[in-house]
Amino acid sequence: MLLALLLAVGPVPPEVAQKLVGGALTSGVAYARLQELTDAIGARLSGSPGAAAAVQWALKKLQQDGLAARTEAVKVPHWVRGEETAEILASPAGIGHRLAVTALGNSIGGSATAEVVEARSVAEIAALGAAVRGKIVFFNHTMSAPADYGKFVEMRSHGPSASGRAGAVAVLLRSLATASFRSPHTGLTIYDADAPRVPAAAVSTEDADLLHRLLQRGPVRVRIALGCRMLPDADSANVIGEVRGREKPDEVVLIGAHLDSWDLAQGANDDGAGVAMVMEAGRLIASLQQRPRRTLRVVLFMNEENGLAGGKGYAAAHQAELGRHVAALEADSGADRPLSVRLRTGEGGNAMLAPWLLPLESLDIHLEEGDAGGADLTPMDGALVPLVSVHPDVTHYFDIHHSAADTLDKIDPENLAKNAAAIAVVAYALAEMPATLPRPAARPATH
Amino acid sequence: MLLALLLAVGPVPPEVAQKLVGGALTSGVAYARLQELTDAIGARLSGSPGAAAAVQWALKKLQQDGLAARTEAVKVPHWVRGEETAEILASPAGIGHRLAVTALGNSIGGSATAEVVEARSVAEIAALGAAVRGKIVFFNHTMSAPADYGKFVEMRSHGPSASGRAGAVAVLLRSLATASFRSPHTGLTIYDADAPRVPAAAVSTEDADLLHRLLQRGPVRVRIALGCRMLPDADSANVIGEVRGREKPDEVVLIGAHLDSWDLAQGANDDGAGVAMVMEAGRLIASLQQRPRRTLRVVLFMNEENGLAGGKGYAAAHQAELGRHVAALEADSGADRPLSVRLRTGEGGNAMLAPWLLPLESLDIHLEEGDAGGADLTPMDGALVPLVSVHPDVTHYFDIHHSAADTLDKIDPENLAKNAAAIAVVAYALAEMPATLPRPAARPATH
Repeated sequence: MLLALLLAVGPVPPEVAQKLVGGALTSGVAYARLQELTDAIGARLSGSPGAAAAVQWALKKLQQDGLAARTEAVKVPHWVRGEETAEILASPAGIGHRLAVTALGNSIGGSATAEVVEARSVAEIAALGAAVRGKIVFFNHTMSAPADYGKFVEMRSHGPSASGRAGAVAVLLRSLATASFRSPHTGLTIYDADAPRVPAAAVSTEDADLLHRLLQRGPVRVRIALGCRMLPDADSANVIGEVRGREKPDEVVLIGAHLDSWDLAQGANDDGAGVAMVMEAGRLIASLQQRPRRTLRVVLFMNEENGLAGGKGYAAAHQAELGRHVAALEADSGADRPLSVRLRTGEGGNAMLAPWLLPLESLDIHLEEGDAGGADLTPMDGALVPLVSVHPDVTHYFDIHHSAADTLDKIDPENLAKNAAAIAVVAYALAEMPATLPRPAARPATH
Repeated sequence: MLLALLLAVGPVPPEVAQKLVGGALTSGVAYARLQELTDAIGARLSGSPGAAAAVQWALKKLQQDGLAARTEAVKVPHWVRGEETAEILASPAGIGHRLAVTALGNSIGGSATAEVVEARSVAEIAALGAAVRGKIVFFNHTMSAPADYGKFVEMRSHGPSASGRAGAVAVLLRSLATASFRSPHTGLTIYDADAPRVPAAAVSTEDADLLHRLLQRGPVRVRIALGCRMLPDADSANVIGEVRGREKPDEVVLIGAHLDSWDLAQGANDDGAGVAMVMEAGRLIASLQQRPRRTLRVVLFMNEENGLAGGKGYAAAHQAELGRHVAALEADSGADRPLSVRLRTGEGGNAMLAPWLLPLESLDIHLEEGDAGGADLTPMDGALVPLVSVHPDVTHYFDIHHSAADTLDKIDPENLAKNAAAIAVVAYALAEMPATLPRPAARPATH
């Protein structure tokens, strides 16, 4: 009764609200899709057989759902992991320890045996100066909550080049993680063109603690050997499905997620869940009796994790129509309980969208102040597309992020469905409301 | 003020209670010792360099603490792990998955590629009959709390032999764990002499869930390769330290822990913590102005994890004096907050001991009904030695038990010290009280 009352409120027709919210919550399709993507396909690092299979699978599913589906070719980095080992060597102070390590994405392979020097930031490398030469740099930090990721991720992305430039022979990074059972968390590192490249790996937080304790007592020597290597770029694709707008087909509402994952696990949370959500939103909207006013475009990006080739490729291929992209959303924050909708829009955008989100009141999801975005959307920054996020609880997101523990059992089907419902309502609203969101101001430039 | 009042109560002299409780809580010695054992030595599987180093380390520390210390030689199994890999093979239903596995302790090495058949108990193997022949048996279960360990551990200890007898080619066991980030948990398997031996490994709970899901959809083929092997028995030792009784030196109060650990980690919780606790209790009692009435014997057993050679060796070597062992305690349940003291004693034992434990009231540790024991004490079962346990909170014990995550960071120094204080008071009481605990009845025979 309460639900019916709430659904009756606002500009979304009740039968549409019921079909989108009720459909997502009762169909079980999002979870079933996620299970296909993770259990039948599994890890999907760019260039891998899993990534290729995921492209074909997604194309077929979007077609089955009644969307006009196609692939758009992109060339992707093809990095493979190989064997990876590291150990603290025996010394008069101790008999040695194996370390739980995993190469950072796109790291060169190679081996090194050297003393370890601990640093707490990229900036500290310059300050350490000659102390880094010939050493293995160990980046340590105090990440304990999701918000810390942004504070420390520079050590992963740019620490290896800074270290290589200072003469280091390898890098160990304390995993960017909020929980651990000796689990190393990978993630992209980016080599500067002008810096010597050194092998770089994440160590588990436990091993980082061990290194730190041992370094307080004296010199520590580590041997590290990474079998990873970069192969020639591979052919891959973004997968796109559309529900063509009934009145303004040239105006596009983009809802995306990334189809690739790291290689250590099934990529259920990052970003299989996002893929399942936006596919379900697309399926539900395609099933409506009347198509929305504007075109809904589901975009499953390839290579978000280690190159962003899909996001860059999409922005380049669609440059001419980015001005007619009236909103874009990327689902890439896991699948815990959805808490809010956030916008990056011009003045008045929130007020415009708010009444259209009344169908989400029953799920306790509210429009709130904040920012929105997504890695795959950053290449279209210049077009000032209004951005929208459905923001789930991320408390435990970094417990398993980029680790071998990113598996299907971590996904709650009900929360997954709620996220899909929220994205469906948001996408419908943006595609149907009479006016479009005001475009946001340009982002301030960052380094 | 409250502490002083409480300490004044009961037969333990206040200055003794203060020295034992206050000493444990303020010295920092237990944690410092644990850090030496785990960081400077590390993993201590029987026959390994770590185990040998631990024996020498413990001997020296007990001597430094003023105990009469010695080693007692035991021959131990010498099992080594080697490389271990497993994967779900590609099939028309899916493109395959790596599995997170680790060999069960004492498993033979070898490889197998076969279909998987799921079983929920050892008994089910016989019921499955011919369905097991040529297959990899996958033991699955529903462990979710510490008390479940006892329900399911038979699959680890006896599942491989039951499977081998039925014609299986290998065994995968869902890890006996209460939490996981894709972490397999090892533990002993015991081959029956008359059963064909097959390689046996634990899989992470996540991979067990995956196997279960895939098996619901059709046949699953797995390839497993374990590089583990059993070497000839190695020379090792229990380490023993004594504080000789001032009046009844022939009556022995034994407090023990096991010096060996699994090879996957530092063995901080299992059982470095126990070692640190009983050593600290011994050190504190040795430091008293007046030695207790009876002899306190600290016994650091070797090979609890994969053979019990230390426990068996101790019982055999001391057979003649087990009748004069007036009490025995093994600390092997981790180092979380100590909750209670439990006895396995004859009628009236609890009442005898209770007043002596008043110094522990301030730590909120109480004598309670229950049982007591310890794996290394079972070989002396026939002697009906009264058994005593200091029982910590074990809620999270099986989160890391026998896994790579059993590392020093999991130990809280304050709780470790409280456990040491409790053991010190219990041991002092047993060694000092005028009479000895009544001996318990024989245990009912088990299969």
